[in-house]
Amino acid sequence: MEVYFDNSATTRVYPEVADIMVKVMTEDYGNPSSLHMMGVRAENYIKETTKELTGVLKCRDDEIIYTSCGTESNNLAIIGTALAKRRKGKSIITTSVEHASVRAVMEFLEKEGFDITYIDPDKNGKIDPKDVQNAITDDTILISCMMINNEIGAVQPVEEISRIIKNSKKDIVFHVDAIQSFGKIPVIPARIGADLVSVSGHKIHGPKGSGFLYVKKGTLLRPLLYGGGQQRNMRSGTENVPAIAGLGAAVKKTFEDFDAKTSHIRTVRDDFVKKVTSLTDVVSHSQDAPHIASIGFTGVRAEVMLHALEERGIYISSGSACSSNKKSVSRTLQSIGLSDAEIECTVRFSFGEENTIDEVDYAIGVILEILPILRHYTRG
Amino acid sequence: MEVYFDNSATTRVYPEVADIMVKVMTEDYGNPSSLHMMGVRAENYIKETTKELTGVLKCRDDEIIYTSCGTESNNLAIIGTALAKRRKGKSIITTSVEHASVRAVMEFLEKEGFDITYIDPDKNGKIDPKDVQNAITDDTILISCMMINNEIGAVQPVEEISRIIKNSKKDIVFHVDAIQSFGKIPVIPARIGADLVSVSGHKIHGPKGSGFLYVKKGTLLRPLLYGGGQQRNMRSGTENVPAIAGLGAAVKKTFEDFDAKTSHIRTVRDDFVKKVTSLTDVVSHSQDAPHIASIGFTGVRAEVMLHALEERGIYISSGSACSSNKKSVSRTLQSIGLSDAEIECTVRFSFGEENTIDEVDYAIGVILEILPILRHYTRG
Repeated sequence: MEVYFDNSATTRVYPEVADIMVKVMTEDYGNPSSLHMMGVRAENYIKETTKELTGVLKCRDDEIIYTSCGTESNNLAIIGTALAKRRKGKSIITTSVEHASVRAVMEFLEKEGFDITYIDPDKNGKIDPKDVQNAITDDTILISCMMINNEIGAVQPVEEISRIIKNSKKDIVFHVDAIQSFGKIPVIPARIGADLVSVSGHKIHGPKGSGFLYVKKGTLLRPLLYGGGQQRNMRSGTENVPAIAGLGAAVKKTFEDFDAKTSHIRTVRDDFVKKVTSLTDVVSHSQDAPHIASIGFTGVRAEVMLHALEERGIYISSGSACSSNKKSVSRTLQSIGLSDAEIECTVRFSFGEENTIDEVDYAIGVILEILPILRHYTRG
Repeated sequence: MEVYFDNSATTRVYPEVADIMVKVMTEDYGNPSSLHMMGVRAENYIKETTKELTGVLKCRDDEIIYTSCGTESNNLAIIGTALAKRRKGKSIITTSVEHASVRAVMEFLEKEGFDITYIDPDKNGKIDPKDVQNAITDDTILISCMMINNEIGAVQPVEEISRIIKNSKKDIVFHVDAIQSFGKIPVIPARIGADLVSVSGHKIHGPKGSGFLYVKKGTLLRPLLYGGGQQRNMRSGTENVPAIAGLGAAVKKTFEDFDAKTSHIRTVRDDFVKKVTSLTDVVSHSQDAPHIASIGFTGVRAEVMLHALEERGIYISSGSACSSNKKSVSRTLQSIGLSDAEIECTVRFSFGEENTIDEVDYAIGVILEILPILRHYTRG
């Protein structure tokens, strides 16, 4: 049996996604900038995806910028705002539990002379909006907060943070990293009160190399890439039409029976958490998000558990697994107060709509079998 | 009959490219950063492509950075060098006939305080290396020159420019935009003497959303995207594994029978140029590159010709067609001394290995038929 419980790292594309991409690549392969029919046909695929997105996000056509990945979306949002507003202020507020594609951008901007404030979460990984309020100064130009934490699934109070920004009556751009939340909980920028929202395609059974940034009409932003002036000058480069078409197909399918799908994912996740924590010395650090289980197996190092499960065809993640192979201590697990020993024993199971209770039972059976052995040998 | 003579805008992917991409997206869909086997398998696709590339480029594994397109490659090369070396100097030399993805980056850097020198070509679109030599100062940090011009196919003397840089004994980075040349003429960075070489996948029957930058070992560069630290920290973001695998398949096929393929392309192009210029008041501005024909139909505006041919299933380009739908006067055609009237009547036919002499004859037949009609009505 093969069980893929690593859906927050990446997902299998829907068959519909592969199908439309093949069609675009082999038949309708024109360059959208071409003036002839092949170009027009290519452009129509982009328009179709934009239509799907504006329906789901309840936004305008010209509020979507297609990017090559979630990382580019986050970089464009944060660097783009910092460059556009650097003459108005140099202070940026974010949290200490952001994904590396936000965290590393902040560290870059810090070296460029910006002043970054990192808000710590409570023991459940949640940011207190009051802490954001207290951090705002006249110099604040940007606040960036993720919607769902990728390691433990804490859902952040982004609507409340947005309200605080509005009440402050300051000209502050609000960026929400929705890479782990889009397709899992409703993401409607106007309802959140977000100016910028980042999304990645390959987390929702869409293609790698796809993503977008929602940019509220009127929000000042500097592009990262200069060239042919595609996408209203905000992202030059020949549009990745097959990937954009694939993203559209993924969004369409994800939001068909959205409630049924996310409730299925939550049922499977909850069932797993209940069963796994009934085992001896197994703890859950999982929070509200429907798809993420953060589990500590006392006495078993994360990588040992990961490879033992892999041998039995079960794929999970140690740490956030979005960053490149390198061993670095999870800031999220540190922030919620876990000891180094606890962090070392924590792994992530992340669920998708294709997962089943049968798979959960198989995994529980395997864990039940290997846990005592792993504890015996790694403790021994 | 459908005839695609717009291969310098973009190409149809090879069937092998679509096949491997589907396999990666639906079976081997892991995240290369994942520690389990699905991650390892994904990483192996990247290694395979890297092996193809290092074979063709005769370079090292760690000299390739995968990007999302040629525009990103050019942006990373130029902005990355400018940021890395801004304390050493602020002067950059380029040409007045570069693609928009170089030109627009230079205009951005100009606003950021860099000093840009644009070298004009001769009447054949060629840069005189002596002009580059005369432009070098102690403040010069970067020289950027395309290898093949995308509008008229002029092949630039990049080896000679490289020799001038070496003889100057100055610490100047040499960037070569090889987006129109890779797969058409040999591109071997060490032989050229280039520190940075940009390539795009979709110009060689590879996927849109693929490309790379060759970075000579030891060349200082700042990344454009920050995050998980993928690709030795030079390009964060989950690697677009299907596109990278597709790029590998495209490179493999392009360089099988490379000489036969490029000689076929040149034969078709030359045949077309010979036949079309035998018609009354038709001139060629085409240069050495095997795949590009720049043709002026006196008295017929480029867009009129483009749409008339499109009605008969023949797809070509007016201007460089790599930039977004907008009408802007071609700098290349201006630089080689054409009048506005001549520029307005110039279109580009660009050829690929799938094109045939039969297609040329069909196109010539159509042109022969429509040319007098178009001249009659648009002159009338």
